[in-house]
Amino acid sequence: MAFSASPHCAPPLHRFGLRRFPPPQPPLAFMRCPFFSSSSRPVYFSPAPTLRIIVSANSKKPYSGRSADSTSASAIDFLTLCHSLKTTKRKGWINHGIKGPESIADHMYRMALMALIAGDLPGVNRERCIKIAIVHDIAEAIVGDITPSCGVPKEEKSRREQAALTEMCKILGGGMRAAAEEIQELWLEYENNASLEANLVKDFDKVPSCG
Amino acid sequence: MAFSASPHCAPPLHRFGLRRFPPPQPPLAFMRCPFFSSSSRPVYFSPAPTLRIIVSANSKKPYSGRSADSTSASAIDFLTLCHSLKTTKRKGWINHGIKGPESIADHMYRMALMALIAGDLPGVNRERCIKIAIVHDIAEAIVGDITPSCGVPKEEKSRREQAALTEMCKILGGGMRAAAEEIQELWLEYENNASLEANLVKDFDKVPSCG
Repeated sequence: MAFSASPHCAPPLHRFGLRRFPPPQPPLAFMRCPFFSSSSRPVYFSPAPTLRIIVSANSKKPYSGRSADSTSASAIDFLTLCHSLKTTKRKGWINHGIKGPESIADHMYRMALMALIAGDLPGVNRERCIKIAIVHDIAEAIVGDITPSCGVPKEEKSRREQAALTEMCKILGGGMRAAAEEIQELWLEYENNASLEANLVKDFDKVPSCG
Repeated sequence: MAFSASPHCAPPLHRFGLRRFPPPQPPLAFMRCPFFSSSSRPVYFSPAPTLRIIVSANSKKPYSGRSADSTSASAIDFLTLCHSLKTTKRKGWINHGIKGPESIADHMYRMALMALIAGDLPGVNRERCIKIAIVHDIAEAIVGDITPSCGVPKEEKSRREQAALTEMCKILGGGMRAAAEEIQELWLEYENNASLEANLVKDFDKVPSCG
């Protein structure tokens, strides 16, 4: 999936001091950061000193233009796909005629915030709870928000979401295998309720979402 | 700030198998989780076995009804305040006439997702990056999204946001002092660009947000 800078999704670049022209020089110093591309994709940016420091600190790993391009492309394609998490409103809210329904991303943000303020609980890795919250509905970027009102059997819903997650991780895995594997692991942990952290995040999902 | 279950912010309870009636019995087993109140607030929910396990595992700490109520109230008030992060659209997008502008929560979600897929970078605590991303614009729950187009001087913007953050942490600190302190610390770290993690998240904020 190609990155598009169409008006519908173009960012307010001026806010960040970003420039669209002239095209950037290949940012060799940033090759390890997946968000700063050395390809011809229209991802232009102002200098990012932090990333330069990071790359300098990691001088053992030689630069590989192809690898950097692959990593950037994977990250951008993945994030572009995840864009729909912000534009897709949650069906339960729509069905109830609630004004200003939350997006799927809004929902996952709230869950992450709940995990953040949950405090330290015995036997619970709070950082993992936050990460599970961030990915637990991520497959909806492809399949949308399937609720009981959709009439989709539970097994079919699960099959669609699993296929979507696999597809998303495949996109990311093109250049970011470790990130793809972590997302797959976190998502499955939640789906299978396979840990105390997953179970806790599922409980958060039951809390009314006024806040 | 009281929790309100008005139609405008009421959740699609049926989706979670939640029931509005009858009112719940005081969930003594859940007193350590800030999201499950034993007060008269209208927070109804289905059984949450995880939390029961957590509380059982932490038997050294005796139950205190007042403390549990205070913690629940703080969490609910804080999350209710944060509701506006989902309903407030980012001004830069609005000013550019972009259809379906992202909310502040959408934006912070995307930043957290970027931190999640950033991979392991030398000297960088990725989990801390995620947490910074989650809180970096949280003061906008009170002050809104102040952009250069608002004509607010930088110092005044910073003053307003600092005051808002203090107010939010005060609300949370009523029963959740550790969480309040962590949010304050993370926010200041970002605001003052005081760590490699904060600097990296600031760089993420410069990436065009199509995805």
